[in-house]
Amino acid sequence: MRSMTHKLDNNPHTGSMGYTDENNKIPAAAISTEHADLLIEKLKAKPDLSIVLNLNCKTLADKPSYNVVAEIKGSTNPETVIVVGGHLDSWDIGEGAHDDGAGIVHSIEVLRLILANGYKPKHTIRIVLFMNEENGNRGGKGYAAWVKERNEKHLMALESDAGGHTPRGFGISANDTQFKAISNYRRLLEPYGCHMFVKSSWGGGVDINPLKLDPDQTINPDMILLGFMPDGQRYFDFHHAKSDVFENVHKRELEMGAGSIGALVYLVDKYF
Amino acid sequence: MRSMTHKLDNNPHTGSMGYTDENNKIPAAAISTEHADLLIEKLKAKPDLSIVLNLNCKTLADKPSYNVVAEIKGSTNPETVIVVGGHLDSWDIGEGAHDDGAGIVHSIEVLRLILANGYKPKHTIRIVLFMNEENGNRGGKGYAAWVKERNEKHLMALESDAGGHTPRGFGISANDTQFKAISNYRRLLEPYGCHMFVKSSWGGGVDINPLKLDPDQTINPDMILLGFMPDGQRYFDFHHAKSDVFENVHKRELEMGAGSIGALVYLVDKYF
Repeated sequence: MRSMTHKLDNNPHTGSMGYTDENNKIPAAAISTEHADLLIEKLKAKPDLSIVLNLNCKTLADKPSYNVVAEIKGSTNPETVIVVGGHLDSWDIGEGAHDDGAGIVHSIEVLRLILANGYKPKHTIRIVLFMNEENGNRGGKGYAAWVKERNEKHLMALESDAGGHTPRGFGISANDTQFKAISNYRRLLEPYGCHMFVKSSWGGGVDINPLKLDPDQTINPDMILLGFMPDGQRYFDFHHAKSDVFENVHKRELEMGAGSIGALVYLVDKYF
Repeated sequence: MRSMTHKLDNNPHTGSMGYTDENNKIPAAAISTEHADLLIEKLKAKPDLSIVLNLNCKTLADKPSYNVVAEIKGSTNPETVIVVGGHLDSWDIGEGAHDDGAGIVHSIEVLRLILANGYKPKHTIRIVLFMNEENGNRGGKGYAAWVKERNEKHLMALESDAGGHTPRGFGISANDTQFKAISNYRRLLEPYGCHMFVKSSWGGGVDINPLKLDPDQTINPDMILLGFMPDGQRYFDFHHAKSDVFENVHKRELEMGAGSIGALVYLVDKYF
């Protein structure tokens, strides 16, 4: 696989390989854009070129792991939850600073901003730092099962898993009435450039999408899922690559993302 | 002067010092944010601290230099000009890649995009690569004088001098009717995130602002000046510093800026 970046560099971008029952399980490897170009040149010169790749990856036995959950109890509707989350796990070639350290910081910042501003939320504001997004989504599925077990009502779930770049808006998976109501807050975020409110059918993020599935696995159209949309131009410069490190996250862009998410959570909590 | 960046680094950001007749000409020097913090600490520990700075800067004698002008003649209104520009000069501690190499590339790209798309503009589309923006603006003043000498009519002047970052919109200095007309194109650029159309009183950029001055130096409210507004979060990480180098400009963000400016020039040429 040629790596997904606009850059020409020597950083392979890793990821998952999925199989269906009908297909042969062919091995796959990620190669950098420079090496992909090199391979194309070599193949042009010698179409019957053969190469040997030694792949030593393997799946180890499962180990127990955990989501991390924190919340501020709602003052008037504590039984209804607004959840904001990102995921703790990352690919081991980098630090996972954008994917999804940024989402973790965004989530923690939402609670910090509420406390720092002395705001008493009406609903319970919860953050979930999910485990195992990259490799099976057992954190996301586990949280959805936990919520059903406790028979909790969620007003909204929001995920930040698209990096720590300048905020641009939100992908919104909701019914038409809900989408229209949330879109009313668009103009308030417009001065900060976070005003692309895009209707999305697919959900808000891998970790929170299971919340939209009813027990029989049908989609609940009334569950509101939001995906934070930062500027995406640089995302694949870092995604699943060794360049996804702390120094490639811009402090102010990260803070603006947290502020935008925090503002939307406040608006939904107070006015929705 | 503490340097204008959100970063803590060791790159002094240089710039100009201006004097009025009423004030003493005190010397000034730019120091990095790290050194400014260090100085604060030292001053706290020893309020009567004295330091010695040896400044060896001086103003050399003038040398002749030139603006670079290129244009595509208009097919139906060749006598009316739409001008797009940036400036060629930069501070010598870096390469001037963002300030204003990006504006130069944006300008050249506007002509290239018109040719590549086979579009025949109604008005003359001209690019001006200005000289001496940073230190006296004689390129901008010279161009305005040249335009008056030739008695040319300008439909619009647009400057890109805010870096090569992701496009966000345009600052627009125009009368109310003109601003309203240009704002009609906003929704066409909205899908690309370049839709902050902000009314500006101050002009569009140092190089083009002299075009708005009548011969008696009063402001002509009907001269349309636009300033390209890219995302500004990273601008002062590079501005007038040794970090303003080629590798800190993102190719795709730069291309998107050129596309946005080119699209607006096309819309103004065809529909204004």
